[in-house]
Amino acid sequence: MKIVLITGGQACGKSTYAQKLAEMEKKPRVYIATARPYDEEIKEKIRKHVEMRKNNFITIEESVDLSSALLKEKAEVVLIDCLTMWTSNILLDNENNYEEIIEKELLKLKDTLKKISKKTKKVIFVTNEVGWGIIPSNKLSRIYVNLLGRVNKFIASISDEVYMMMSGIEVKIK
Amino acid sequence: MKIVLITGGQACGKSTYAQKLAEMEKKPRVYIATARPYDEEIKEKIRKHVEMRKNNFITIEESVDLSSALLKEKAEVVLIDCLTMWTSNILLDNENNYEEIIEKELLKLKDTLKKISKKTKKVIFVTNEVGWGIIPSNKLSRIYVNLLGRVNKFIASISDEVYMMMSGIEVKIK
Amino acid sequence: MKIVLITGGQACGKSTYAQKLAEMEKKPRVYIATARPYDEEIKEKIRKHVEMRKNNFITIEESVDLSSALLKEKAEVVLIDCLTMWTSNILLDNENNYEEIIEKELLKLKDTLKKISKKTKKVIFVTNEVGWGIIPSNKLSRIYVNLLGRVNKFIASISDEVYMMMSGIEVKIK
Repeated sequence: MKIVLITGGQACGKSTYAQKLAEMEKKPRVYIATARPYDEEIKEKIRKHVEMRKNNFITIEESVDLSSALLKEKAEVVLIDCLTMWTSNILLDNENNYEEIIEKELLKLKDTLKKISKKTKKVIFVTNEVGWGIIPSNKLSRIYVNLLGRVNKFIASISDEVYMMMSGIEVKIK
Repeated sequence: MKIVLITGGQACGKSTYAQKLAEMEKKPRVYIATARPYDEEIKEKIRKHVEMRKNNFITIEESVDLSSALLKEKAEVVLIDCLTMWTSNILLDNENNYEEIIEKELLKLKDTLKKISKKTKKVIFVTNEVGWGIIPSNKLSRIYVNLLGRVNKFIASISDEVYMMMSGIEVKIK
Repeated sequence: MKIVLITGGQACGKSTYAQKLAEMEKKPRVYIATARPYDEEIKEKIRKHVEMRKNNFITIEESVDLSSALLKEKAEVVLIDCLTMWTSNILLDNENNYEEIIEKELLKLKDTLKKISKKTKKVIFVTNEVGWGIIPSNKLSRIYVNLLGRVNKFIASISDEVYMMMSGIEVKIK
């Protein structure tokens, strides 16, 4: 099994490239959607993503428990879109012990990836770079930047390939 | 004709590198300036850019209609600085139908580039990456990040070469 | 002597990689800490950095005068962490003539690096990219982005190697 991480800024073509990579593999393909539809803007984004996928993927909506979601269906390829929302969900659900929870979830995820490594060909994670601007004045934002940094470094370290997307161009950095 | 896109963060050396690339070509060289001098800070930035160019370029000030600007003068090389301001101008002028307008302008631009491809040797676009920080709390900013993302992906896709600038260093990514 | 610059976003693994590079060299190793402990959050960050270094480094705390700090101890390797705080300190101390002061400090730094080039094997600078988000609405932030851009471009230009860190992965860009 190959683990791939796709990172980059907002609106750089991360999801499009991830989907292209996933569609190189045969069906069944699983798409794990981590976004929570909490307002109209995010609902519209979800709607566009659904439209892009057509019926090329089995969609599993799971905002936190990635391990269970990964074990749910047999798939040639799994696309997890995205770690950004996943990290945000865990932070907002656990304001007092998010660090502990995230470490536990990352280890569980690593174990699950090992478990499915024989029956699955490719697992693709999409994430975001969010720390390349001015340090946010908002404390929760600073916490989030550090937490997502931790997640990205962990997933990158267990990935076989890492791509940075910029202006729609994929740049292989690992 | 070669199309080149130069992208990167603020104050990374994008304009300096773009100008260096342009000055490798013979005169006449055209510089299309898209910034609107709406306050003292931007006026000062424009003044510095004018000074940098000396009389090495014919300057055309055009904040929206790049196609007309491209057809105005015969040039060996055209430098368009920058798509960031251009996108911002179109968004602010068309708050209700900016998506439609930008698509129309991009297609018109592509056509015009085809038209001038025999008489022009090089067209250089400068743009910015603006989506690598925390998602902005301001809605117009989020719209802008997505719109500029669309512009950057489009121009990158029709470019022969794309460079990312970082700390003054050019990194070829296409 | 080799000069190395490590840049990237927040929480990307810059300090960790810088320390790894430094620990490849023999002792004595010097660590120049530029952060001012003005609040609990930064104190906590400093504490974590101190812990990471254990007693592998001689620590010099110097928030502005890098040249003096570089001349203080004989070292095989010096790690300066980070230019981001250093630039911020100079800006906050000199709100009226920061540009002049920074140019003076950069030239002095260049001279000092030449002076120690025979007795020191490696000097490693850590910095940040801060200009890849939306242009900040706060004027001081915009000034800071430009000033740090100037510092990064200068140090990159005199560096033998420059690395971009992303999700914990080092990418050599010079």
